[in-house]
Amino acid sequence: MRHSDLIFSNEFPAPARLGQELLLIYDKILLKKSPAFRQWSRSFPLQYAVSAGEDLKAVENFPRHIGALVQLCEKVSTRHLTLVVVGGGSVGDFGGFVASILKRGVGLVHIPSTWLAALDSSHGGKTALNVGSVKNQIGTFYPADKIVMVRSLLLAQPEARAFEGFGELLKIAWIQGGSLWRDLAQEKNVSSPMLWKYLEAGVAAKYKVVKKDPEEKTGWRHILNLGHTVGHLLEVLHQLPHGISVNYGLDFSLRWSWERGLMSSSQYEKIMRAPVSQYLLSAGRDHLLSRQKKDLNEFSRLLLSDKKKTKAQTLRFIFLQSPGRCVIQEVTVEEVIKEMVRQQEAALHEL
Amino acid sequence: MRHSDLIFSNEFPAPARLGQELLLIYDKILLKKSPAFRQWSRSFPLQYAVSAGEDLKAVENFPRHIGALVQLCEKVSTRHLTLVVVGGGSVGDFGGFVASILKRGVGLVHIPSTWLAALDSSHGGKTALNVGSVKNQIGTFYPADKIVMVRSLLLAQPEARAFEGFGELLKIAWIQGGSLWRDLAQEKNVSSPMLWKYLEAGVAAKYKVVKKDPEEKTGWRHILNLGHTVGHLLEVLHQLPHGISVNYGLDFSLRWSWERGLMSSSQYEKIMRAPVSQYLLSAGRDHLLSRQKKDLNEFSRLLLSDKKKTKAQTLRFIFLQSPGRCVIQEVTVEEVIKEMVRQQEAALHEL
Repeated sequence: MRHSDLIFSNEFPAPARLGQELLLIYDKILLKKSPAFRQWSRSFPLQYAVSAGEDLKAVENFPRHIGALVQLCEKVSTRHLTLVVVGGGSVGDFGGFVASILKRGVGLVHIPSTWLAALDSSHGGKTALNVGSVKNQIGTFYPADKIVMVRSLLLAQPEARAFEGFGELLKIAWIQGGSLWRDLAQEKNVSSPMLWKYLEAGVAAKYKVVKKDPEEKTGWRHILNLGHTVGHLLEVLHQLPHGISVNYGLDFSLRWSWERGLMSSSQYEKIMRAPVSQYLLSAGRDHLLSRQKKDLNEFSRLLLSDKKKTKAQTLRFIFLQSPGRCVIQEVTVEEVIKEMVRQQEAALHEL
Repeated sequence: MRHSDLIFSNEFPAPARLGQELLLIYDKILLKKSPAFRQWSRSFPLQYAVSAGEDLKAVENFPRHIGALVQLCEKVSTRHLTLVVVGGGSVGDFGGFVASILKRGVGLVHIPSTWLAALDSSHGGKTALNVGSVKNQIGTFYPADKIVMVRSLLLAQPEARAFEGFGELLKIAWIQGGSLWRDLAQEKNVSSPMLWKYLEAGVAAKYKVVKKDPEEKTGWRHILNLGHTVGHLLEVLHQLPHGISVNYGLDFSLRWSWERGLMSSSQYEKIMRAPVSQYLLSAGRDHLLSRQKKDLNEFSRLLLSDKKKTKAQTLRFIFLQSPGRCVIQEVTVEEVIKEMVRQQEAALHEL
């Protein structure tokens, strides 16, 4: 797998440092949200603005996008072309996919504009488009040449986004364990400066996992889905932001790991009592509690169509033994639903 | 780059040997042309028939194809899916591209049904779609896991196709030199059994080039375009088959290599007097001679838009010093046109 250079910078990098012939692809909302970006973007003669979101990733819209992009770089030498992609998850998935197939692969620089992209999706080379209603059905493994984390761009986000990004940071801290988790556990506030402080260590931890299984052949990379199986259900069914949903999914996985006897009670108590864990009891959890059980049928249907299912009725679920030690086990859809009901009832008792 | 297993077989392979979960993508004309294929295809529960040609490679049609394909393999485990692609160049380009991006890459078996595909396009991992009127603007490098050359399928083609396939064989024999060229030089007839005889050695010679430059980074792989720069012009402007056009392009390159002083006169005479060289003076050459010089403007325009151009007015042309020794030189479009006129006039003198 190609190596990505990681750059952590207070300001936008000089375009000349990013490649010879540059084509800027960016989330058009950034022109409003970040004056620094607006200023910087003016130095790119070739640029293509997109609207972030799942529509951008719809394969039905792809011929229109790629037609415009091919025309834009008609006069440019293929050999020296680099796409500079500035945006969050959907823009990165789209731009990365374009870079991987345009002229059979051109240069790629990611500049993530959201915490989720900076912590997770811009790293590891996964690109994707959606086919019909099914997400990420096509894509490539195509790591960026460079990924530039720009502090001023990331801190231009509203503070509410920091809470969403926190889920991905917590996930990787649980996977990595060691000092990353020990330090994070003591944090009392979730904020943008706090996320920036842990960004480099969090990203390094993700690369440690990806390196062992760059193209998801051994199954090891699958542990990065910790908290995501149930998180995705909330995201789709309750229209919650990805980060909030992952927060809930992590909480669910932690409780199930203990209930299943994979995590000791003392370990479980230790995590639950850490200052940072107050953020686990997130809006997602309250949201779920307010729902009727008829939702569970919908959950069940979605779990079965999830791409992570291995056989008809089972899926690979990631449990946590302790920070730094994950276990993947095959579970049935019924087991997931049963545990959801158990947690729902236990939570109602606690109220 | 992934390694491709090459299998040369008299008959179609047992499907079970090709992978666990199979999806057959095939040129629908084969149902009529090859009873053996029709019989064999019945053992695939999942199959998708396509019409060969550039329409299949149009990105505008891609959402429809990929939507149908995703639906077809909805119930299949991604992990064990292999696409078995049976057809000529366009079907292989399309099927290989699908395999490279479906679920971020599934298994791929090529079974070429034309000499051009068997000798050239199914090997080396290039996949492609067209964007607007420009060919092969998007694609991937994705070598097949297995490529199965089936004698009965290839010999089901009309004998006229053998003459078209001959151009690719001659090209690779000139590039490789050695015994491949020495043996081929003595052949007096171009026929399907003759092509089958040289297929394994010809394919091995192509891999020798590809291995040195799998993703076209060093420029070495570019020598596989020997005879193709001018060949493509005829293909596009005179609607000649690819193989016929390449025959002419090879003849043109040989004559120019001598005229430019890169090939010695004794070497040139030796090649021209080889029994097999009677096939060089192909229909393409006669065709060109009958054209008016106003065509040259069109040639010039096309050469400039050709993807092999490096700067505004030059392109990298492959010359032959002797069989086994190619030279790449930058030439201007004017030089190519001038040499075309020279060869046209020389040929008229010979008549």
